[in-house]
Parts: sequence; C-alpha cells; structure tokens
Amino acid sequence: MSKVLVLNGPNLNMLGSREPEVYGNATLSHLIDFCTSTGAELGMEVDVRQTNSEDELIRWIQEAFEQKLDVVLNPAAFTHYSYALRDACAMLKSSNSRLIEVHISNPHARETFRHNSVISAVASGVIAGFGIQGYALALRALHDN
Amino acid sequence: MSKVLVLNGPNLNMLGSREPEVYGNATLSHLIDFCTSTGAELGMEVDVRQTNSEDELIRWIQEAFEQKLDVVLNPAAFTHYSYALRDACAMLKSSNSRLIEVHISNPHARETFRHNSVISAVASGVIAGFGIQGYALALRALHDN
Amino acid sequence: MSKVLVLNGPNLNMLGSREPEVYGNATLSHLIDFCTSTGAELGMEVDVRQTNSEDELIRWIQEAFEQKLDVVLNPAAFTHYSYALRDACAMLKSSNSRLIEVHISNPHARETFRHNSVISAVASGVIAGFGIQGYALALRALHDN
Amino acid sequence: MSKVLVLNGPNLNMLGSREPEVYGNATLSHLIDFCTSTGAELGMEVDVRQTNSEDELIRWIQEAFEQKLDVVLNPAAFTHYSYALRDACAMLKSSNSRLIEVHISNPHARETFRHNSVISAVASGVIAGFGIQGYALALRALHDN
Amino acid sequence: MSKVLVLNGPNLNMLGSREPEVYGNATLSHLIDFCTSTGAELGMEVDVRQTNSEDELIRWIQEAFEQKLDVVLNPAAFTHYSYALRDACAMLKSSNSRLIEVHISNPHARETFRHNSVISAVASGVIAGFGIQGYALALRALHDN
Amino acid sequence: MSKVLVLNGPNLNMLGSREPEVYGNATLSHLIDFCTSTGAELGMEVDVRQTNSEDELIRWIQEAFEQKLDVVLNPAAFTHYSYALRDACAMLKSSNSRLIEVHISNPHARETFRHNSVISAVASGVIAGFGIQGYALALRALHDN
Amino acid sequence: MSKVLVLNGPNLNMLGSREPEVYGNATLSHLIDFCTSTGAELGMEVDVRQTNSEDELIRWIQEAFEQKLDVVLNPAAFTHYSYALRDACAMLKSSNSRLIEVHISNPHARETFRHNSVISAVASGVIAGFGIQGYALALRALHDN
Amino acid sequence: MSKVLVLNGPNLNMLGSREPEVYGNATLSHLIDFCTSTGAELGMEVDVRQTNSEDELIRWIQEAFEQKLDVVLNPAAFTHYSYALRDACAMLKSSNSRLIEVHISNPHARETFRHNSVISAVASGVIAGFGIQGYALALRALHDN
Amino acid sequence: MSKVLVLNGPNLNMLGSREPEVYGNATLSHLIDFCTSTGAELGMEVDVRQTNSEDELIRWIQEAFEQKLDVVLNPAAFTHYSYALRDACAMLKSSNSRLIEVHISNPHARETFRHNSVISAVASGVIAGFGIQGYALALRALHDN
Amino acid sequence: MSKVLVLNGPNLNMLGSREPEVYGNATLSHLIDFCTSTGAELGMEVDVRQTNSEDELIRWIQEAFEQKLDVVLNPAAFTHYSYALRDACAMLKSSNSRLIEVHISNPHARETFRHNSVISAVASGVIAGFGIQGYALALRALHDN
Amino acid sequence: MSKVLVLNGPNLNMLGSREPEVYGNATLSHLIDFCTSTGAELGMEVDVRQTNSEDELIRWIQEAFEQKLDVVLNPAAFTHYSYALRDACAMLKSSNSRLIEVHISNPHARETFRHNSVISAVASGVIAGFGIQGYALALRALHDN
Amino acid sequence: MSKVLVLNGPNLNMLGSREPEVYGNATLSHLIDFCTSTGAELGMEVDVRQTNSEDELIRWIQEAFEQKLDVVLNPAAFTHYSYALRDACAMLKSSNSRLIEVHISNPHARETFRHNSVISAVASGVIAGFGIQGYALALRALHDN
Repeated sequence: MSKVLVLNGPNLNMLGSREPEVYGNATLSHLIDFCTSTGAELGMEVDVRQTNSEDELIRWIQEAFEQKLDVVLNPAAFTHYSYALRDACAMLKSSNSRLIEVHISNPHARETFRHNSVISAVASGVIAGFGIQGYALALRALHDN
Repeated sequence: MSKVLVLNGPNLNMLGSREPEVYGNATLSHLIDFCTSTGAELGMEVDVRQTNSEDELIRWIQEAFEQKLDVVLNPAAFTHYSYALRDACAMLKSSNSRLIEVHISNPHARETFRHNSVISAVASGVIAGFGIQGYALALRALHDN
Repeated sequence: MSKVLVLNGPNLNMLGSREPEVYGNATLSHLIDFCTSTGAELGMEVDVRQTNSEDELIRWIQEAFEQKLDVVLNPAAFTHYSYALRDACAMLKSSNSRLIEVHISNPHARETFRHNSVISAVASGVIAGFGIQGYALALRALHDN
Repeated sequence: MSKVLVLNGPNLNMLGSREPEVYGNATLSHLIDFCTSTGAELGMEVDVRQTNSEDELIRWIQEAFEQKLDVVLNPAAFTHYSYALRDACAMLKSSNSRLIEVHISNPHARETFRHNSVISAVASGVIAGFGIQGYALALRALHDN
Repeated sequence: MSKVLVLNGPNLNMLGSREPEVYGNATLSHLIDFCTSTGAELGMEVDVRQTNSEDELIRWIQEAFEQKLDVVLNPAAFTHYSYALRDACAMLKSSNSRLIEVHISNPHARETFRHNSVISAVASGVIAGFGIQGYALALRALHDN
Repeated sequence: MSKVLVLNGPNLNMLGSREPEVYGNATLSHLIDFCTSTGAELGMEVDVRQTNSEDELIRWIQEAFEQKLDVVLNPAAFTHYSYALRDACAMLKSSNSRLIEVHISNPHARETFRHNSVISAVASGVIAGFGIQGYALALRALHDN
Repeated sequence: MSKVLVLNGPNLNMLGSREPEVYGNATLSHLIDFCTSTGAELGMEVDVRQTNSEDELIRWIQEAFEQKLDVVLNPAAFTHYSYALRDACAMLKSSNSRLIEVHISNPHARETFRHNSVISAVASGVIAGFGIQGYALALRALHDN
Repeated sequence: MSKVLVLNGPNLNMLGSREPEVYGNATLSHLIDFCTSTGAELGMEVDVRQTNSEDELIRWIQEAFEQKLDVVLNPAAFTHYSYALRDACAMLKSSNSRLIEVHISNPHARETFRHNSVISAVASGVIAGFGIQGYALALRALHDN
Repeated sequence: MSKVLVLNGPNLNMLGSREPEVYGNATLSHLIDFCTSTGAELGMEVDVRQTNSEDELIRWIQEAFEQKLDVVLNPAAFTHYSYALRDACAMLKSSNSRLIEVHISNPHARETFRHNSVISAVASGVIAGFGIQGYALALRALHDN
Repeated sequence: MSKVLVLNGPNLNMLGSREPEVYGNATLSHLIDFCTSTGAELGMEVDVRQTNSEDELIRWIQEAFEQKLDVVLNPAAFTHYSYALRDACAMLKSSNSRLIEVHISNPHARETFRHNSVISAVASGVIAGFGIQGYALALRALHDN
Repeated sequence: MSKVLVLNGPNLNMLGSREPEVYGNATLSHLIDFCTSTGAELGMEVDVRQTNSEDELIRWIQEAFEQKLDVVLNPAAFTHYSYALRDACAMLKSSNSRLIEVHISNPHARETFRHNSVISAVASGVIAGFGIQGYALALRALHDN
Repeated sequence: MSKVLVLNGPNLNMLGSREPEVYGNATLSHLIDFCTSTGAELGMEVDVRQTNSEDELIRWIQEAFEQKLDVVLNPAAFTHYSYALRDACAMLKSSNSRLIEVHISNPHARETFRHNSVISAVASGVIAGFGIQGYALALRALHDN
C-alpha cells in the first residue's frame, strides 16, 4: 500500500478560524480526516502534518526523499520566499518522488501584490482554488498517474 | 445530465507532434476521447473543441455564459496576453458558471521568461502540470463540488 | 452627408449583461440606435459595427482609410495589446481621416494593473468615462471640428 | 440655473503664446468667452478661472465641494504629480459633484516620458486632444447626463 | 514653557467631511482643541496650523528652525512628492529641533499605489494609524524624551 | 486588568551590545522592565517575550488571537520578508485584537536598500524612531483608545 | 523543385500606401512578383501570402510543418506580442523546416518604445532593414545553405 | 544694457545656515551682491530673486518670456519634480531667451536616490558643483555667447 | 589554540545525495572530517555544525560574537533572503570576529534568477565555486591573515 | 571596382576554436577567404580585418567614413556596450556609406540575459543567425541595392 | 605658471565634421587653439589632447595624478559606461587635483535613452551645453577658485 | 613545473597609491613579488602582468587558452561591463584551463550601485575581500585541486 505525505505550512493550524470567507470553514482536523478517508478510498496511506516551522517542513521533505514517498504540499506563506524549502523540494524532483503543490484559494485571484510561488518551478504539478477538495484532486492525480 | 465545455486554444490541434517531451504523445483526438469517456464515467456530457482563433474562443465562452455551462479551458499561448479572452471569462465569473484553467505542462517550470497568466485571476481554479490527466481532474472537480 | 464608422471591439456584443454596474444596462442594439439617431440629429450617416475579431476590426479601419471616413473606435480589450490594430490606426492618422478613441468606463479609475492604451498615441482624441454618452460626444466632436 | 466651475492650472494664462502648434492660437480670454457662451447656449452659468498656484486650485475644488458644483478641470502640469490636488478631487468624487478632466492636446500622443495623470482615477470622465473644443464637450457631457 | 508647532498640510481643513470612514469625524477645530488641551496637560504650549500651500508650510518649518521649536507634522498629500518640504525638514534635523511625522490613517494599509513618504528619512520618528490620537502620542513623545 | 503581549523578533536578545549608536544602550532586560512598569502605571498586565524563531513568533500571535489579546510587535528583520508572520498578523486584524508595529530606530532613515515592511499593511498603527520609548507610546495608544 | 512559403502579417496588404517613407513604395502585388521571380531565378517555388488574421497565419505555419516547407515570415505587428504565432514557429524549429524572420524596415532604428520580437528566439535567422530586398536575401539564404 | 534674471528656488533663503559643508558659508545676501557685482563687471544688469513658492517662480519665468530676458535659474528642490516650472521654462526655450540651470553643489555626486533634473532637458546649459562661483560662470556664458 | 566555527545552513545535511553534479559527492560527514583535519594542520580547533533552522544559525552566530570566534559560514538558501541571519552577521562585523562566506558552487554561474546574497555586504570575504576545498581556503585565510 | 570593409571585433580571431557548436568550424582565415572570393564574384574588393581593440575598430570606421566605403561589421562583444563604436557608426549613417551589422549566431536565440545591440539603431540593416553565410548575404545586399 | 590637462575622448578628432548641427563647426584644431589662448589670457599652461583609446585616456589621468595637475575632461562616449576611466578619475578626486567634466552639447536635452554619466559622481563640477565655450568656462573656474 | 598567468586589469598599476584604505598599501611590484614567491613555495611558475588595455588583456587570455595555462584574473573595473573580456574567458571555460576571479576588496560590501560581475558566470571560482592574500588563496586553490 503506497504512502503519501500531505504537508501543510504556517498558519494552516488555524484553518476554519482564519478568514473563512477565503479559506472556508473546514478546520485542520477536518482536513486530516478528509485526506485520510480520500486516501483510504484510493488505497493509499496518507500521513497529514502541519507546522509553522520552516526547518520542520524541510526535514519532512527530506524524510520523503529518503523513504521515496510522494508529497502533497501546501506551502502557505512560504510559497513566496522560502528558498530553503525550495531547495529541499528540488531534491525530490531529481529523485522518483513526485511533489504536488496545493493552494486552498486561488492565489492569483486573491493577491496581486505578492511575488509568485518559488516552489512551482520544482513541483510536478500545481492545483489551486478548489478549497480542501484540492487535496483530493492531488491524491487522485498521484493515484491515477 | 450536466454539460461541460472543454475548450482548447491555439496550436493544441498539433498535440502529439509538437514537442512531445513537453506535451506528451497524446493527440487532440485522444484528448477528445479521454475527456468524453471521463465525462461519461462521471455522468457529464462533455463537448471538446479546439481553435486557433481568439474570437472563436470568445464566442464559445459567451455561449457558455448564455447556456449557463461550466467550462474547462486550456488557453495555451493566449494565457499570456489575451485580455479579450480574459474579459469574456470575467463574465462567466460574475454568473453561476465555473471556469477551470488547465495547462498540460507546468508553465512555471518550463518557461521563466513569459508573463504570468492573465486568465488566472478570473478562474475558479487552476490545474497545471499533469498532462492530459489534468482535464480529468478538472472534470472531477466540477463533478464533486 | 458625411459618413462615420463607429467600431466596437471584443465582448461589446455582451453590453448590458456584462458587469452592468461598470458598463451600464444599455445593450449593443441600444448603442446602435443611440449612435444612429445622434448621427441623424447631426446630419451624419453613422455605421455602427461590432466584432470579437482583431482582423475584422483591422479590415474596417483599412476600409475607412480607403474611403476617407472618420472613425469612432472603442477598442475594448484590444486597447492593451493589439499592435496590429494600432498599425492600422496609424495609417488613418497619416491621412485626413480622424480617429476618436472611446471608452465607456474610465479605465484609469477601474483598472490599475493593466498596461496603458497602445491606441491613444495614434488617436486624434480620447473620451473616457461617460458611458454610451461618450459616443455622442465623439460624434459631436467630429461634427463641430 | 446650474453653475459649473471651469478651472485651469499653471501656465494656461499663456495660452496662445506657448507652443501654438500644440496648444492652438486661442488665448485664455478666448477660452473664457468660449466657455461662457457655450454655457449660455446650454443654460449653464460657467465660471472660468486660472491660477499657477496649487493651493488656490485646491481651495476652488473645496469651494465646489461645499457649494455642490460640478467642475471641469484642466490640471495642466499638475496632472503629473499633485497628489494634494488629487486628494481635493477625491472629496468631490465621494459627493454628488462631478469632475471632468480636460486636456487641450492628447498627452498620450505628445509626451511619452511623463508619468500618467494622478487625477484621472478620481475623475468622472476624461476628454483629451480636442483643443479648446474639449471644454465644450465637457460642458455638454455635464448638461446631457 | 516649551512650545511646539503642530503643522497640517493640504486638505486637512476639510477633516471630518472628507472620507470620514478613513479619517474619522473629528474636524480641524476638534483637532486644534485636542492638541491644545493635550499640550496643556503636558505643560506645553501648542500652536496648531493648517495650510494648503507648500511654501507656507516651508516658511513655518523655517520659523521652527530659527526659533528652535519642535514640530509635529502631518504632511498629508505632500508626503508623497514635496522634496521642497523635505529639504526644509532636513534643516531641522541638523539642528536640535525634533520633527515627528504623523499620519491619521495608516498609509501602508490604505494605499498601495503611491510612493512612500519622502519626509520619513528626515524625521526623528513616525506615528501612523492612530487617528487624531496620533497627535497626542507625538506630543507625549516630545515631552518624555 | 487587560493583558498585552509585547513580542520581539530576531537579534533583539542582543539589544545593547548590537550597534548601540543605532539601537541605544538599553538591554533586553531593561526593555522588559521598562514595558512592565509602564504597563503597571497604565493598569495593564504586560508580557514581554523575545525569540529568534519565526514559528515561535507565529505561535505567540496565534495565542493572542485565541485569547483576544492586543499585541505590540517589533518584528526586527522579519519586517522585510516574513509573509508567514504577516499571515498570522492578518488574522489578528480580522478579529478584535489590535496590533501595533514598533521599530526602535527609524527604518526609513537608516536603511534604504531593504524592502519596506510587509507587516505594516496589516497593523493598526506604526510607531518608529523613538528608541525603547516607542514601546511606551504603543502601550499608551492601546490604553487610551 | 523546393517550395517555400513567404508569409506576411497584418497591414502588409496596405504596403505602398502606409508610411511610404518607412516602408517604401512597393505594393503587396509588387512584393509577390518580386519574391516569385527571385524564387524562379533560384529554382524555388515561392508561395506568397498575406493575412491580417493571427489564426490564419498559425494555420499556414502548421501547414509548413506538415509539408516540411521552409518559411520566410514577416510577422509585422505580431512581432511584438503574438505568443500564439511564436508557439507555432517553435514547432517548425524542432523539425527540419527553417524559419527566417524578415522586417522591411529596421525595427531597432524605427521604434524604441515597443517590446522586442517574441519570434526571434525561435527563428533560424533574422534579416532587417533592407526593404523588400530582405525577402530576396532570405530566399537566397535558404537556397545556399 | 542687457538685463538678466537670476532666480532661486525654495530654501535658498537659508543659504549659509543649511549644511554649510555642502552649500558653503555664503548667505543669500552675499549671493545677491556677488551676482550684481559680477554683472556690473560684465556690463549686465542683474536682478536676483528668491522664493519658496512654485507659482511665484513660474510668474517670474513668464515675466522673462514676455520681456525677452535671459534667465539663470537655481531650481533647488523643484529640480526633481516640478513639471509646472518645467513647462514655463519650455516656453522660454521656444523663444529667443536663454535659460542656464545652476546648482551650487554637484547633485550627481551628492544624491543618488533622487530623480534627475526635469529642468535640464529644456535648459540651454547646465553648470553644477562650483558653489556660488557657478552663477558667475553662468553670467559669463550669457555674456560671451 | 584558536577556535573557528564552521556553520552550514539548510539542506547541507543532504550533501552528497543532492544534485551531486553541482555539489559533488562529499557528504556532510566528509565535510566535517575535512574541515577538522585541515584545521588540525593549521593548528586551529574547528567546530563544524549544520542546521536547517534559521534561529539556530542565528544563535550560533551570537555565540561566536560573545566568545569572539571567527566564523566560516555557508548560508545555503538563506543567502537569498534571511535578513535575520544578516543582522546577526552584522554584529560580528562590528566586533573583532571575522566572517567568511563560502559557497560550494559558484552561484553566479548556476543561478541567474535568484537575488544576490544579502550576507556578502557584512562578510569580510567571499569564496565561491571551489567545492568543499573552499572551506580549506577560508580556514587558511583566517590562519594567514 | 567598389571596395568594402569587413570588420570583425574581439575574439573573432579565435573563430573555429571558440564554442564551435555555436560559431561553426570555420576559422578567421576561412572567413577572410570566403568574403574575398564572394566579393570577387560580385565584382567587389573586400578588405577583411579583425581586432580585439575598441579604438582600432573606431579608427577603421573613421577610415571608411573618410574614404566613403561601405562597411560590414560584426561587432562581437562590443555589440552590447560600446557606445564609442556606436558613435563612430552613427557618423557613417549620416554620410552616404552604409553599415550592415552581421552576427554569426542569432543573439536573440542564444543569450537572453545580455542587453540588446547598441549598434542596431545606427545600422542600415541587420543580418543574424546564418553563420559565415551572413557575410555573403551582407555583401550581396550592398551589391544589389 | 600652473598647468592644466584638457583631455578629449573618442571621436572628438572628428569635431566639425560629425553632426555639426549638434556639435558646431569648430574642429579639434580650433578647440586646441581656443583652449591654449584662453589659458594664456588666464596665465595657465594648457595641454590639449585627444584619443580614441580608453587606456590612453586612463594613462593621462594617471599622469595628472602623479604630476598633481588639474584636468578638464570631455569623456565623449566613455561618459556612459567607462568604469575604468571612472576609477582613474576617482583617484584624482582623493588627491588635490580637480577634475571638471565638460560636454559640448547638453546631453540631457539631446539623448534620453542613454544612461547618465558615470563620471559625474567623481567630478568636482560639470558644465554642459555651451559648445566649445564650455572649455573656457572650465578653465576660468579652475583659475578663479 | 606548471605555469600560471596572474592578470591584472586597469588602474592596478597604481596599487598602493589609490585609496589605500580600500586597497591596502601594497604596490604592484609587491604584488608581483608576493605572487612569484607564493608560486615558488607551491612549485608553480607564476607570470604576473598588468595592463590598462582591454585588448591586451584579451590577448593574454587567448594566450592562456592556446598554451593551456590556468589563469588568476583581477579584472578590476572591467568586471562591470567588458563583455569582450568575458567572451575570451568563456573560451577558457570550455577548455581544460581554469580561471579564478580575484578581487582585492569585497565589491559587495564596497559598492552597491554597480552592476554585478559579468565575468563570474564564466569563472571556475571567485575570491573577494582578502586583499592581496586573495591571490595566494587562488594559487593554492589551483595547486590543491
């Protein structure tokens, strides 16, 4: 049974209480249940984690690299400046692991003043704007491909 | 039975012969079959079209607006400059129709010198980098939401 | 009796249903009636046309050049990037025909992220922000000058 | 009988002697007569003023705000940098008064090196490139709307 | 008893009637009373002035320089472009007088399109976003330091 | 008795030994005493903390969000790039908690080569350039408002 | 006998009447005769076409791709923004067909305000500034190489 | 006997007390004497004036235009943004009057963060970096030419 | 016996497995041995550390500041954005400790799209492009100087 | 018999040994033979020279100016920054001599990071991307025109 | 008797034949006579030189440095990019020699597309726009100061 | 015995007299002795040269290319713009010769306004900020690698 890491960056522990009109009402614990059960349907073991810490996120990406796991990553605010996270993701890219970048809201629609994602160039694919359903689409993409 | 328009922009009629290492080997007629049968599985009627003409693409978006259809759009090179297409898509956004922007390859990974998408800000969601599987993910997103 | 072409660019066939709080409730057919009757009052024959197609718009400008007609042009989204349309307009400028650029809404007030007009530098005059009344002002400007 | 202020910024007292091939031969006193008589035809009382002083122009805009008058403004060189004038104009915008920005020549055609207008975003409409006829168009626009 | 000049730039004479949701309901005369009484509590003589004129503001800064007074300055729209005001303020900085820049609203939050303050680099300190309370904080800062 | 968090970012544990001509001679422990006693005068419980860690700072902001506390934040170097911190602060803004950004020195005067603050747009107010007195002004602003 | 497509973009049907001091007096029909007879001298069959339509131009490039023909292309105003045309040309580049970009006037000398050519990066060679003689040089380059 | 206007912009009334290490110890009254006596040596009547007011400076330039006088202008801080002053100077340029721009210090050496002079493009010549001697050089240039 | 800290930033724990064609085959433990034995040859005690955490790196720099140690720093991805790390390094610079910035590969050759180093301006010297030999050069530079 | 100078800039003496996959295998002496014999066919005397020295190249351009010779110039790396060379070429342009700029490879395709040619704006024509055949095309262009 | 070097950069040997409407009719030999005789009047020995070679110009600046001579420099096209010349001039600046930069025409008026002077920041003064009279003004400035 | 060229660009013949607080007191002849004796210790023949001439430097790089020598290069001011030098260095890179770029001072710390090095991208390694010791480090790097 294949295993997938679903990794979530800073402030996603506040999901549901932070700007619900943008991010929806689902909380992190809903997100965990939703990813786990979607994974179960698809016959995948899904391990969902969240952290506000850049270096913890990097360690998890390195763990995926060593255990040859696929990753679904919502980098949240790190999207815009964390070259350290990017370097860790680039390692995955050069191996057989895949990395799918997910955003709950459509960052292009929401925020025009920020820089673009520094992660996208090293991701296999990007899914944005579908709320937490985006995670299910990412898992399915890993499953079907 | 719900109906969806799957619209494809310039040069996608050459799919399969154009840079296959980037766009894969599937041809437009494979793409049409793939979308139609994926739609059938999901109980959706899928109408797949392609054109090299900006004004024909605009007419199709206007048709979706009037018939209240959802749209999956691969704008191809129009992604980067067609404000005329964008204005048509903005109309959809203000109605109940949804628009999902699909790219076969990951434009962030492939081309750093081009401008970003002028379409994304008026799309409900964006899916990029999954080859023609991206169309299936888009149809599923419309179905499940 | 002098003749004037009133030319309208992409998506203006949707006038009245597209963002009415910005563009007003008048439809294209109202616009045609309004221009025609305003022209009649001023003793001008007014031929109002709309197209989503860049090359059709170019052909009409070339027609004005050959028949030495004045033009009122609402370039809509082509405002921002159509150098092909601009080149056609530049031809008019070097002849005795006049070209007045009209915008229904005030683009400076509405949209800060777009480029400026590529047409303005080859227009005789610009009128923006007056709704469809702007067309009447343009016709009057041609009449009185 | 409705009253309109027609306000003119720096150096317009030299109209007629300054670059006549760009600005025409009409002097400020011609302009005053032209606006007054055009207003009379339209049944409007027109008060035409000129100043080289930024704060005097601001006071006149504040006067229009308090007396609920419409304004036709040729900001001349202040167009490009006077945020103080702009703030005064923004007040008008939030009231029921209307502000029409007029330029005698087409600034897009004439000068490519300058910044855009900082006034336009708070104007109801913009008219440029018609010589002093632009003032008549502005008065008519106020009258007909 | 120490004396302080509290100087206010263009359009602040309209305080209370101009965009009250941004600038609050207090009028200039409230502001004058508030500063005077706050000064009285702190044992400071406070002289509050307002002008729309750049050169009057410069003269007042020069007066402070010559009389060795501290200044609280709300430069309003001059914030964004008045290098003449800035040069006058730079003179204060090289003397023993202090200059505190105050903004009623938080300009970083409100307006993204304008340039930054050209005054800040020559101010002793900056206080922004506290409504008219910001003036009291500035007076207290002068008093306590 | 109301409680306030006073949070300090990276390298502020070195206060007093780092560039004293810019940051003054007060150490972090002076700062803590100063804030605590100022708070006591104003009848506020003040909890002063410092960390070099972005995620610890984020956790503290989230704690303030959950306990509905006001925050005085000196983001230090995070001012210039931490969008993760910014997102946490944006949450506060949408609640009833207030956030005041404090800088010991005036960043506009000191450093021209860095980007502006990414925090300011989500702060209620900004106070900069008053040394550690700035913290007292911030506490007073929270108290009086 | 080898065959070459000579393709001409928007407004080149007006050759000879449009800014003759820049583009010369030769008309499109002269151009066609000139290319055909030059081709005949060189033993090449030359098919000269012109269109104002972006999608027609793309179709012709695709035709060249499928029939393995070399192309001489004067993209006219599309030079500056047509990524759709560029994508079609990129296909040629990855095949054995050659694409030579021709400009009648020297765009570097004439127009400083426009973007550079988006076509050049996918062309085999560029010839600019020789009037219609540039077409003969392009045909000779194809012949001799 | 020819007459020359020597015009000085904002803050030059403070000459001698403002940053003497940059601007020297001479005061405005020294400057007036120095210009007058230099003019006397050269047989020129020199009228030296100073103002902090933009519109007064404009009026003086207009006066020179009408009386056909040459002008030596130290625009001070207006150098960097006063398009209103620039427009007045442009008028001089189109007449037979000459305008020489003088700066006491070398602005290129002193300040890298400001924009360049907006006046230079309409000046006959520029002299910078020679202290008040620069005025004498300017008068001599007018005399000898 | 002098002591030196050799500090390594994020992802350098993966040395040897990450893009070996860029970073070489040596692992972190090789690097540690190499630095230690090079130090021994030069009579220096070398303490080699690695972390993915920005705040741990800052703590180590502060430790060097307090113990007056020299530092060899490979900031890895923090090179491009960590102003917090930079502020810590700036402290070293103002003391007698030296800081040498080392990069294993030549960042100028490898990556054109990233910003420059924010660390270099506060480093004593920079060594880049020599693989792990660069560390030996840095130690020798500290030894010989 | 007309004479032409064919001038080659820095490093072209290394032709054939420098990046042959970009510049081909022909050496400078092949190039000289090729140009001479092509010239002979066309009845032109061709003088081919190469130098690494900017001032020698300028002297040769000046020689062409004085002797009224046409020039074929491959400016090599000087393309990107030598305004001194450009000024010399501008002199040719104002005389009856013609200047054709030749590049062996297509600089637009090869190098995106460099500035554009500073020479092109003063060249009669530009030929790029045809290897050493480009010289023959240039000679022919001079011959036929 | 004091000695001054008057140094002239590339293409100034062509003075009089190059664009006389910009640079006047005086030739280099007129310029030499003019400078020498002006110097004689002022009691200065003037040595006028010209070169097209960057390194020769640098050697002359170094000679002035060693012999402690003042320099009048017309850097011509080197103005815009020769950092090598600039570094040589910076050496003069740190000694007691003075350097005056002279331009025959007003570069701000003539050329908007070029970079500014890289020399100005290390010059004592700048004189531009007075034709060859500018050299006399420069010599007088050296004499009188 | 391996041979190395140590090449020095413009103004380095003035080492010791030019800004000694930046470049130290060592003269060029010290530098030559230092490099020669360091080379002798390492068993390398070191040939140290200096020139102010761009083309001489290019010839020396070409000589290294042909004789397969390693190079230590201090490009001095050519660092910032000499693409001709860069092209010569790029040739070395494609051969087995190595090129090490050395700067005596740390250009990142000293000068923020200049462009980056155009040489670095074609260098094997870069060493900056160590005074003339940097040359010894470069020679050692060549020796040990």
